[in-house]
Amino acid sequence: MNAPLTSAISRYPVPQLADVPADIREKILAVQEKTGFVPNVFLALAHRPEEWRAFVAYLDAVMNRDTAPGRLSKGEKEMIVVATSAANGCLYCVVSHGAILRIYEKKPLLADQLAVNYRKADITPRQTAMLAFAMKVCLDSAALAEADFAALREHGFTSEDAWDIGAITAVFGLSNRMANLTAMRPNDEFYLMGRVPKSPNATRASGA
Amino acid sequence: MNAPLTSAISRYPVPQLADVPADIREKILAVQEKTGFVPNVFLALAHRPEEWRAFVAYLDAVMNRDTAPGRLSKGEKEMIVVATSAANGCLYCVVSHGAILRIYEKKPLLADQLAVNYRKADITPRQTAMLAFAMKVCLDSAALAEADFAALREHGFTSEDAWDIGAITAVFGLSNRMANLTAMRPNDEFYLMGRVPKSPNATRASGA
Amino acid sequence: MNAPLTSAISRYPVPQLADVPADIREKILAVQEKTGFVPNVFLALAHRPEEWRAFVAYLDAVMNRDTAPGRLSKGEKEMIVVATSAANGCLYCVVSHGAILRIYEKKPLLADQLAVNYRKADITPRQTAMLAFAMKVCLDSAALAEADFAALREHGFTSEDAWDIGAITAVFGLSNRMANLTAMRPNDEFYLMGRVPKSPNATRASGA
Amino acid sequence: MNAPLTSAISRYPVPQLADVPADIREKILAVQEKTGFVPNVFLALAHRPEEWRAFVAYLDAVMNRDTAPGRLSKGEKEMIVVATSAANGCLYCVVSHGAILRIYEKKPLLADQLAVNYRKADITPRQTAMLAFAMKVCLDSAALAEADFAALREHGFTSEDAWDIGAITAVFGLSNRMANLTAMRPNDEFYLMGRVPKSPNATRASGA
Amino acid sequence: MNAPLTSAISRYPVPQLADVPADIREKILAVQEKTGFVPNVFLALAHRPEEWRAFVAYLDAVMNRDTAPGRLSKGEKEMIVVATSAANGCLYCVVSHGAILRIYEKKPLLADQLAVNYRKADITPRQTAMLAFAMKVCLDSAALAEADFAALREHGFTSEDAWDIGAITAVFGLSNRMANLTAMRPNDEFYLMGRVPKSPNATRASGA
Amino acid sequence: MNAPLTSAISRYPVPQLADVPADIREKILAVQEKTGFVPNVFLALAHRPEEWRAFVAYLDAVMNRDTAPGRLSKGEKEMIVVATSAANGCLYCVVSHGAILRIYEKKPLLADQLAVNYRKADITPRQTAMLAFAMKVCLDSAALAEADFAALREHGFTSEDAWDIGAITAVFGLSNRMANLTAMRPNDEFYLMGRVPKSPNATRASGA
Repeated sequence: MNAPLTSAISRYPVPQLADVPADIREKILAVQEKTGFVPNVFLALAHRPEEWRAFVAYLDAVMNRDTAPGRLSKGEKEMIVVATSAANGCLYCVVSHGAILRIYEKKPLLADQLAVNYRKADITPRQTAMLAFAMKVCLDSAALAEADFAALREHGFTSEDAWDIGAITAVFGLSNRMANLTAMRPNDEFYLMGRVPKSPNATRASGA
Repeated sequence: MNAPLTSAISRYPVPQLADVPADIREKILAVQEKTGFVPNVFLALAHRPEEWRAFVAYLDAVMNRDTAPGRLSKGEKEMIVVATSAANGCLYCVVSHGAILRIYEKKPLLADQLAVNYRKADITPRQTAMLAFAMKVCLDSAALAEADFAALREHGFTSEDAWDIGAITAVFGLSNRMANLTAMRPNDEFYLMGRVPKSPNATRASGA
Repeated sequence: MNAPLTSAISRYPVPQLADVPADIREKILAVQEKTGFVPNVFLALAHRPEEWRAFVAYLDAVMNRDTAPGRLSKGEKEMIVVATSAANGCLYCVVSHGAILRIYEKKPLLADQLAVNYRKADITPRQTAMLAFAMKVCLDSAALAEADFAALREHGFTSEDAWDIGAITAVFGLSNRMANLTAMRPNDEFYLMGRVPKSPNATRASGA
Repeated sequence: MNAPLTSAISRYPVPQLADVPADIREKILAVQEKTGFVPNVFLALAHRPEEWRAFVAYLDAVMNRDTAPGRLSKGEKEMIVVATSAANGCLYCVVSHGAILRIYEKKPLLADQLAVNYRKADITPRQTAMLAFAMKVCLDSAALAEADFAALREHGFTSEDAWDIGAITAVFGLSNRMANLTAMRPNDEFYLMGRVPKSPNATRASGA
Repeated sequence: MNAPLTSAISRYPVPQLADVPADIREKILAVQEKTGFVPNVFLALAHRPEEWRAFVAYLDAVMNRDTAPGRLSKGEKEMIVVATSAANGCLYCVVSHGAILRIYEKKPLLADQLAVNYRKADITPRQTAMLAFAMKVCLDSAALAEADFAALREHGFTSEDAWDIGAITAVFGLSNRMANLTAMRPNDEFYLMGRVPKSPNATRASGA
Repeated sequence: MNAPLTSAISRYPVPQLADVPADIREKILAVQEKTGFVPNVFLALAHRPEEWRAFVAYLDAVMNRDTAPGRLSKGEKEMIVVATSAANGCLYCVVSHGAILRIYEKKPLLADQLAVNYRKADITPRQTAMLAFAMKVCLDSAALAEADFAALREHGFTSEDAWDIGAITAVFGLSNRMANLTAMRPNDEFYLMGRVPKSPNATRASGA
């Protein structure tokens, strides 16, 4: 009924780093340099180089967008990823982005809280409103209405913020489905990152 | 409660073609040349050029992938788009890709059938199995299991086909959410395309 | 798993027009005269003449009820049919009443909009409220409460209008289930009706 | 939030028996003669005589259809009504047809069992299969497939039996929605009927 | 597919009263003395004496708690049991506690109303609010929020009352699952209790 | 909309250890001795001593039951708690029993896997079958049928094992609802337990 008990990182063939196209390899090595290991998603999706490039470009576009003060912080973006990925039952994204979230926010409990029930997490009412909007995009986007945008505005979010929240949710909705399709396995390293005082080579994180 | 009665094509500002970055404008003009008009998605998403580029690259990667005989046909790919976009209540994608599907398959009734109930559509049992897999990726990917892949294999689908089905569903799951977020409006032209003998300038289609 | 790929109009035996009881044949011929063809529902349900008579009587009672100005228009009644039939996944009713709706409202795009997501359709806020009430009757009638009637009143609907909306939804809930049970196939003619300038013999419509 | 605590039998005006059209009054009096009282549905729906006539004709068509031995018994038809009406949260139909079921089957416990969980009721495996099919028509008719008909055939049901099961479910789906719309109240008499040795004037039942 | 047609009171072995531990037997005999028969739950769960003791202690703690005037009445507690047990499809609890509810409230119709649709029952708006809270604890406790407690306060309920409502719902959520697991059968006696003038030995009730 | 951002461990008053009844205090001190701290559930529920005693007795009855080899292990019991508590969105139980699970199984990744998607966890097919049964008891116990018990037997589970699985699920269904009702906060200590080499005073765990 389910994927076999295995340490395979994907249902599909996973290329050796030496065999992936040079531009992809270069980016993977850069992540490895920064994170200390290669997150499995970068190898698992490299089975299809063209899709890999589009996926990574999309992640960059929504997650690393230059944001002025008052816009979504990097930590808030990860909150959206963790909460909506949990709603989609995506083990890879909850574990890997939970790690990044803990590091960004320096709150070792937060990822576990958001993965189980965002309404019980140690976040602000503004962040709760952000996640309520994200969950609607995730689970019932057809019913999005002016009232949902108005609820964001009450907490000071602009319509551009609403786009950010929605786009992050949408991109990780894609990622969640690909991870579930391929039975993508999170690297063991992610589970502990950000829970204990960080080791020297984990100063910055890149999980997906 | 819902988006105002309007001919606006997006809740968000839509750039003039003259104002979009040159690489994007060039691609949009190419689509216009081929289709006879500019599908609204290309203008609505150009509000964010970086996301536009990633989105279009992803579409290319999953929809225009070179396929050997026996792999998913272009028409079958559009079937997946129409059926799963309907499940997500995405007006833009159902209408625009319904048009493309009618043109590819030369079956003027098929898109409407798939949009309402794929189990009642004029398709083969193999295509029904393809859509059942797509719907599971769309609606309950966390529960994907070996049995789902086995059901595809019974109809001759390979595991690469399964990836194709899943990836198309995942990319349009993203597209559906962005279209619902922005209240994206399909061009009026799409509604009739492929229903009547085609006009000279609609020989090829590009809907999203 | 699903009905075979076929041009059969029902899972059940379909009588020849010559073999149906005279009163039924007479009514069917009148519809044919008006519409230019016999909608399949009139033949498929004629397998059981008594049920046919009750069904047609019920349709007449709720759809052709004489309405004073300000009550539900004929087009609005068809909006209810299309939106709720789509929620029930009923291909026959969405396609046939979509055709009638296009003709009544002279809006070739409206039926497709309502079939995918009524919240995104080109309708008035009053009509959106009407459809929200209809969808609750369709999907969760046990929870109907005074607040639902009050929401209608805010848009000028009377309690008699509420009955109309509910009764149309209820009758087509029956029709949807019978069409799904019998795998009833819409006539090919319906798909194009009202999308292009009408032909002389399609001046009035009757889709059932 | 809900209908007021009241002994009103409908949210809508209920006509006096003297004021209903003669043909309807005659039928109502016949029911009263047989049952000992007038079931409220006959008065509540008489607010709209045309709909009343169609409704009663439909009930007759599906519930009183002459059935050869081996077809659905009168008691089995009432089982379908009770189980599906409970799924729709319809108080009127569960209570009134629960009474009739008890009388037909002479099993005072059966209606309560079916109203809570048909899988735990004192019925045969064949009847359980019948109700499983009815529940699918009630709750997810869009997904009806050959496998559902095959499951019925394994228990000796013909395709005509399948129509009967589906049509009863469909007609009471309509009735359930009208009863919920009007907040129709079951007569107090129904609650006890068939639970204790019957009184002389309740030899035959007619609940809706 | 379902438990066999049988008069067995449990899927599991049921001990003879003579074989249960003395402390349990003593309590069972006390119930029998009061009720006139031994409710099956006391025998079915005695298959595991330790669980039996904890279960009965929990019931006592939440159902027989000394309550000042203005707190939940015994009848109101049974309303919660019947409505939430119906939502869980638990035949045993609906039937046995429906009997107790009828006796406490001296309203022979109330249990059937609550089992089908609590919004249509002959209860006060305050009691409807109580049941709306109970249903949220039963069906979606993860989403419980301050607004739910505030809705109770509007009807004069304290936070201790909220605990009572929630705890009763939680304990019977356990009971419902054990009854469904064991296919526990309600005693035939329960079905009629409180519907007709009571017999001398049924002056007090104990159903679970 | 949700519980305020706070370090309070309950929406309700929490007694001081000195103020709880002696028998309860004694047990709490024993847990503290063993675990190194007092799990919040023992203080939060002590607001109602009688319920506390019944709750703890029930936990003992289902979690510490003497089990012969081949029966559910202590680790497997915790797997059930984590997976079903996640389905109920219960932060307290997922976090506290996740800690215990990690310690019993000596698998630091397992709890996070089960909390997100048990189908992707590093468990045996037998354990997956165990959790599939538990999830049905948790989410749809009304539909439990012989086929579910048969699926367990295929993996060597006895009917007594089925009771264990069901009873653990049922008791924690109660616990989950009480924790959600009271907005119970897990102790910070739990989040890290079992993820890193254990400290001397955490040799045994008791999370509730």
